[in-house]
Amino acid sequence: MTIIDIIEKKKNKQELTVEEINFFVNGFTDGSIPDYQISPLLMAILLNGMTDNETFAMTNAMLHSGDVVDMSALGGTVVDKHSTGGIGDSTTLALAPILACCGVYVAKMSGRGLGFTGGTIDKLESIPNFDTALSEEEFFNVVKSVGCAVIGQTANLAPADKKFYALRDVTGTVNSIPLICASIMSKKLASGSDTILLDVKYGSGAFMPNPKSALELAKKMVTIGTLAGKRIGALITDMQQPLSDHVGNSLEIIGIVEVLNGKKNRLYYEIKEVALRLLALTGKYTLASAEVAFQDAIDSGKALNKFAEMVEAQHGDASYILHPEKFVIGTKDVVVADKSGYVTHMVAADIGRAVTHMGGGRMQKTDSIDFSVGVIMKVQLGSKVNKGDVLCEVYHNGKGLDEAKSLIANAITIGRKPIPEHKIAYAYVHKDGVELY
Amino acid sequence: MTIIDIIEKKKNKQELTVEEINFFVNGFTDGSIPDYQISPLLMAILLNGMTDNETFAMTNAMLHSGDVVDMSALGGTVVDKHSTGGIGDSTTLALAPILACCGVYVAKMSGRGLGFTGGTIDKLESIPNFDTALSEEEFFNVVKSVGCAVIGQTANLAPADKKFYALRDVTGTVNSIPLICASIMSKKLASGSDTILLDVKYGSGAFMPNPKSALELAKKMVTIGTLAGKRIGALITDMQQPLSDHVGNSLEIIGIVEVLNGKKNRLYYEIKEVALRLLALTGKYTLASAEVAFQDAIDSGKALNKFAEMVEAQHGDASYILHPEKFVIGTKDVVVADKSGYVTHMVAADIGRAVTHMGGGRMQKTDSIDFSVGVIMKVQLGSKVNKGDVLCEVYHNGKGLDEAKSLIANAITIGRKPIPEHKIAYAYVHKDGVELY
Repeated sequence: MTIIDIIEKKKNKQELTVEEINFFVNGFTDGSIPDYQISPLLMAILLNGMTDNETFAMTNAMLHSGDVVDMSALGGTVVDKHSTGGIGDSTTLALAPILACCGVYVAKMSGRGLGFTGGTIDKLESIPNFDTALSEEEFFNVVKSVGCAVIGQTANLAPADKKFYALRDVTGTVNSIPLICASIMSKKLASGSDTILLDVKYGSGAFMPNPKSALELAKKMVTIGTLAGKRIGALITDMQQPLSDHVGNSLEIIGIVEVLNGKKNRLYYEIKEVALRLLALTGKYTLASAEVAFQDAIDSGKALNKFAEMVEAQHGDASYILHPEKFVIGTKDVVVADKSGYVTHMVAADIGRAVTHMGGGRMQKTDSIDFSVGVIMKVQLGSKVNKGDVLCEVYHNGKGLDEAKSLIANAITIGRKPIPEHKIAYAYVHKDGVELY
Repeated sequence: MTIIDIIEKKKNKQELTVEEINFFVNGFTDGSIPDYQISPLLMAILLNGMTDNETFAMTNAMLHSGDVVDMSALGGTVVDKHSTGGIGDSTTLALAPILACCGVYVAKMSGRGLGFTGGTIDKLESIPNFDTALSEEEFFNVVKSVGCAVIGQTANLAPADKKFYALRDVTGTVNSIPLICASIMSKKLASGSDTILLDVKYGSGAFMPNPKSALELAKKMVTIGTLAGKRIGALITDMQQPLSDHVGNSLEIIGIVEVLNGKKNRLYYEIKEVALRLLALTGKYTLASAEVAFQDAIDSGKALNKFAEMVEAQHGDASYILHPEKFVIGTKDVVVADKSGYVTHMVAADIGRAVTHMGGGRMQKTDSIDFSVGVIMKVQLGSKVNKGDVLCEVYHNGKGLDEAKSLIANAITIGRKPIPEHKIAYAYVHKDGVELY
């Protein structure tokens, strides 16, 4: 078996065997196959595709390049949610305590933000003293006692993926459904949950440009997860505007506390949809009984208290959750409408970029973050506005303000005619098919 | 302009501009763009193709990476023939003196053999003292006085091509029509002839597997040559069996002398076809007048004498041309038919490999060559044979004999039914269209 034979096969649209896929994944990871032979193979995969069997084999090969977390010691149902990322996506922070209140474990390893998207770990670190770097033992203890914990990725999960991604990033081979699927699923399967809900986002603030491509990716990931023996489903959700009206690190914690206090905004409905699907996937709930449990967790105040409990167990100052007014926030400015009409379009990514410009995100991995900056959206797609109305509050500490305001103003299009409502979810994909909303 | 943008464009089937093509050819050649970004671009080119404009731009960029030979000082019509290579293809050795007798210059830079194909330069070096490394000045003087000369490539022609080929060879990106075209044409255009006849071979002893792919390559090369202002045409010829019945270095010189002495075998008809098309391309001849001149050059003995004259001018022992029995040849053995029937198929490449195994070719660039070994085919496709008939004489010096005989025996298929005659030429491609034979 040689790498050239494997390239030739994929070039000629033949299916690669498990052995061939292991050969190139392992060879690339251990350095015995050079970049210049892997990148044309990736291009051939991008242009000629991969079957489900090939994608599953590639996922497995990457998964086994590192540690596989074993959560069986928890002795209960462990659920996980993975979002493909977007602007104002702080769903994990509410989901973890809500799901814990519903009797399932959430042992979540999350990432940091880079570019225009924020990271769950950064948001949590805006809570004073919150520790996102618990040891594995402590992490498991918090999950066992509280029901949920969220830490940064410590285990060496799918290191092959890092190497593949770095090469794809500089060789025009990022936007391949099978490669994206193998990248996400290798890490998901390595992190040890038995029930997984994928939140695949499309639109101006997401990686996938439209529902069709998001659906294609979702189907592939559900197929691979099912082949791996997981209970798995995928929601296709809208990211044509920021998910939360709060964007920024401390601001998003404040937004989450509002939801846990009963506020019913877009973020609430998104969190509810994810929670219900996830609870139903475990087999312990129907969608109907899940809805009762979900609403009770919020209405009873248990979910908010659970969030505070998790923060405390992770050494954070839980008083910030119960009294979010304690968060220090930047100086307020506003972006106003320059004409009357309806909000017809948003470049959600540019609202994320605005926050990054003010110091609320990273341009490079080593940048530090100003937790106190961000924006609060006062409009959403379809909102009617009059000239001079506030579109968005901008919280800043001086840095990058003009650029941020200009980015936001240009990101929001005001047209003359009303537009149809933007649904939160477009479809739900499960192992037996697709339900459209 | 970045290499990633260029990869993305080609991946998305958009046409690259001249500037973009210059950027990646020059960047790869000077080392500023790494292999791992060029190889996926080559894969995208292989899978998505290149327009004629793109192929022409790539040819030009590679052509200008090195020297461009100027033959205007010769003050006459300079013709060139390029074969895509095959087994027993010694046409250049007869064509050069015949064409010189017809009043056009042949200033040919040829290559050495590697793998299963022989090289013109190696064949010439089997003539004692023949000098294939004349200085440019001496080379031009021989062309001017004799009318023809054949040397190894000395000028630094299209060095970019060497670098591209080395990468294509290890990344599964060899069999791309536009890349093959740019590779061949960049060197042809750099070597300075004004009239070019391409001999594109297909079949079991050639690079192109079938007439269709050979035709596609030929059309592309004629288009590019025409865009470059050359008089150019391409013959599509059969390489499903060795072109000459003599295969091996000294043996092929003997075979050429036989043709120049009037023997009318397959090699003769191939040489005639190439010569007539080339002479007609110059505009100095019609096909009819070219045929008269061609036949006169042979029948009068002028072509044989011209060959001897060229050998002498290049310091070789011309007595070998006039008395080819002087060549020292290996010990004779034979391969016989193991059943009666008709020769229905030959793996021409394996007959080339047999000669290489006996020492008559190179496995690696640094190998030395035994000029005295080779084979003389006693049958061709369609021949009727009886069990025990000699299929092939094998001339050896002990080395690799068993392997060679076994390769040859397996390379020749004897079937029960006669097959249709194999034509030498399948089509002729010129700037205005295709003529089928």
